[in-house]
Amino acid sequence: MTQTPQKPSRLDLVHEAQKRLCGEIINTPLLHSKTFSHMAHTNVFLKLENLQYTGAFKERGALNKILTLDDAQRQRGIIAASAGNHAQGVAYHCQRLGLPCTIVMPEHTPLIKVSNVRYHGAEVILHGGGYDDAYQKATTIGDERNLTFVHPFDDLSVIAGQGTIGLEILATNPDIDTVVIPVGGGGLASGIGIAVRETAPHIKIYGVQSAHAPAMYHSFKEGNRVEIASEGTIADGIAVKTPGDLTHYLLGMYLDDMFTVNDDEVAKAILNMLEIEKMVVEGAGVAALAAVISGKIPCGTNTAVIISGGNIDVTLLSRIINLGLTKTGRQTKIIVALPNRVGELHRVTGVLREMGASIVQALHDHSYSIDSLRVLDSAVEFTLETRGHDHIEAIYAALRGQGYRVYHPATRE
Amino acid sequence: MTQTPQKPSRLDLVHEAQKRLCGEIINTPLLHSKTFSHMAHTNVFLKLENLQYTGAFKERGALNKILTLDDAQRQRGIIAASAGNHAQGVAYHCQRLGLPCTIVMPEHTPLIKVSNVRYHGAEVILHGGGYDDAYQKATTIGDERNLTFVHPFDDLSVIAGQGTIGLEILATNPDIDTVVIPVGGGGLASGIGIAVRETAPHIKIYGVQSAHAPAMYHSFKEGNRVEIASEGTIADGIAVKTPGDLTHYLLGMYLDDMFTVNDDEVAKAILNMLEIEKMVVEGAGVAALAAVISGKIPCGTNTAVIISGGNIDVTLLSRIINLGLTKTGRQTKIIVALPNRVGELHRVTGVLREMGASIVQALHDHSYSIDSLRVLDSAVEFTLETRGHDHIEAIYAALRGQGYRVYHPATRE
Repeated sequence: MTQTPQKPSRLDLVHEAQKRLCGEIINTPLLHSKTFSHMAHTNVFLKLENLQYTGAFKERGALNKILTLDDAQRQRGIIAASAGNHAQGVAYHCQRLGLPCTIVMPEHTPLIKVSNVRYHGAEVILHGGGYDDAYQKATTIGDERNLTFVHPFDDLSVIAGQGTIGLEILATNPDIDTVVIPVGGGGLASGIGIAVRETAPHIKIYGVQSAHAPAMYHSFKEGNRVEIASEGTIADGIAVKTPGDLTHYLLGMYLDDMFTVNDDEVAKAILNMLEIEKMVVEGAGVAALAAVISGKIPCGTNTAVIISGGNIDVTLLSRIINLGLTKTGRQTKIIVALPNRVGELHRVTGVLREMGASIVQALHDHSYSIDSLRVLDSAVEFTLETRGHDHIEAIYAALRGQGYRVYHPATRE
Repeated sequence: MTQTPQKPSRLDLVHEAQKRLCGEIINTPLLHSKTFSHMAHTNVFLKLENLQYTGAFKERGALNKILTLDDAQRQRGIIAASAGNHAQGVAYHCQRLGLPCTIVMPEHTPLIKVSNVRYHGAEVILHGGGYDDAYQKATTIGDERNLTFVHPFDDLSVIAGQGTIGLEILATNPDIDTVVIPVGGGGLASGIGIAVRETAPHIKIYGVQSAHAPAMYHSFKEGNRVEIASEGTIADGIAVKTPGDLTHYLLGMYLDDMFTVNDDEVAKAILNMLEIEKMVVEGAGVAALAAVISGKIPCGTNTAVIISGGNIDVTLLSRIINLGLTKTGRQTKIIVALPNRVGELHRVTGVLREMGASIVQALHDHSYSIDSLRVLDSAVEFTLETRGHDHIEAIYAALRGQGYRVYHPATRE
């Protein structure tokens, strides 16, 4: 009597993935954050996937998929479509394994992302105006050239690879009772969902998507897959128009609930990670944390928060820092009206020095129109480094105390 | 026959410190960096002391010193002088242990640093124009109030605490053959020097100081303690005018050599850590790394580099990012002379759009004098986001090809 070989369960697939990835992928730290715990009223543990070599979790799924292929498939080569972390993850591991790799990226992809992928030895094909075009092109070329297409999320081997994060969390801290995961296409949340729910069913599992690209969020809430184009978000790594078929099904099965965060909340979380944990993270990478610290998630006692990636453009990071400095009152712009007399700029800068405000930029204009009704003789717009909102108010008061008319550039008031 | 109790060796003191600190201090990761290894032609392992709770290694020495005190001394309280990481380390652990803590800081200390220390429950006394005045005041108050003064570096208990970093490195990676350490007062390098040299004498040990505050560097090279005031550096955490007496002696004994790095090299290393390792580090924290990647250190096969702290002001970080963007050609300023005709700004911005240059700031001036000899009809100064030096050259060429006179604001050429 022969036994029918049993089909491996989804959890088995994640365990098999973990064996395949062992030693090839960093078992990233699960860092307890005192300050975030204080802010979120729960013990916050950050799973730092931004510390993977290519700066994101995507390597796990990509490598697991590649390692499930037979030798002939591997030697023919791999193809993927992505302008971001998936592209880097696929290219990096193909290079390590000596496999031919082709990445299709949209035509307007920033040069830095193209050269990052080329650095890992992949052939880059630029095609189409957006991800959908690149995706179509990649599947077409894959068929023509007999290459294996590695989907960024809607593939059970990819999902099982991402699921290894869940196993690592459970092994590192068995007291975790809540897991919060950023969601784009849903591969990460599906994988962790399988690993966590099938191992420890009592643990709550939540997904977080950007409010500016909420396709999976609405699909989850409505129970039907809906397409929603991104309106543009700094969490661009999770801006996915079309939820996966498989991932939509799995999220419905494994997630307790989903939430959204807006760009303001994401920007604040990026700045918090920078200032508190001294780490650089991308918008998508910090979406789950943004939801936790803004109090949206019903957190338990010990909450694991996935920080999914760190690949943020430094230009964007610089803008977010400046925005954060402005919001927290550590930088401000003011317009000061000046009488047309010799020495007035000297006098007003004396007041600023007295107040301990450091001048970043000064634009002095002899004929400055503050609004359509009132023309001032002369005005100067200062960008100042300040010590907080109280300090800014004190500066306004000091200048007005000296007889100056002072305006905020945005409100003109 | 009674045995004379043997005086513990310096290495014994470090081992005792390690026992005291066990569980109270993070055994920080020793992270292998592929990219820095590639840049430095040696395997680079980063000892990430920026991940300590207060963001720097200083906690180790401070806590070890506090734990060597008897109960009566502890209850009377602790005093220290510092505007930086030492202040936070002392205050944080006093709070944890429920001990009274006083920190003397120079009067002009940024508010954020004062409130960080107050956040940890310490009494803050602002005194004097600089560190020396604060130091004197702290020792005076310490004598008056019978408080224990915790020196930032020139104290064997403090040094032994810092030395625990050396033991951790050796335990984590026995193949390390070179250790590179940032040096200010010399406490960190003395402690690691003891731990490493006394355990594994074959390992090379190097210290790195800022070229803009090189007091210990010259003291080491000359064999005599010399005082050198800092000329100001972004590595302000290691800008120490007066080398310690004990630390000078120990560095002479344990360091193989010392090197200096300038602010340009430090700024580059900060940006590298941000972009490559996704971590925020302060200037002092990255001095050793700056020396390694600029090729100054005779590196062995496996080099441990101490990243000593991460507490950088985000305003400074933002400036460093901008500087880095400019140096790598991802941001630039250009002045374009325009004929005084309607529609010229529209025409020139059309060329910039064609070239894919994103405008950050535009200052258009109807009467712009480019230098003392030549007055232009009109000019506009653009700040542009660009894709590298080649892209910038192509933009100059395109604008000149359209008949524009184009200048660089710094060189006026």
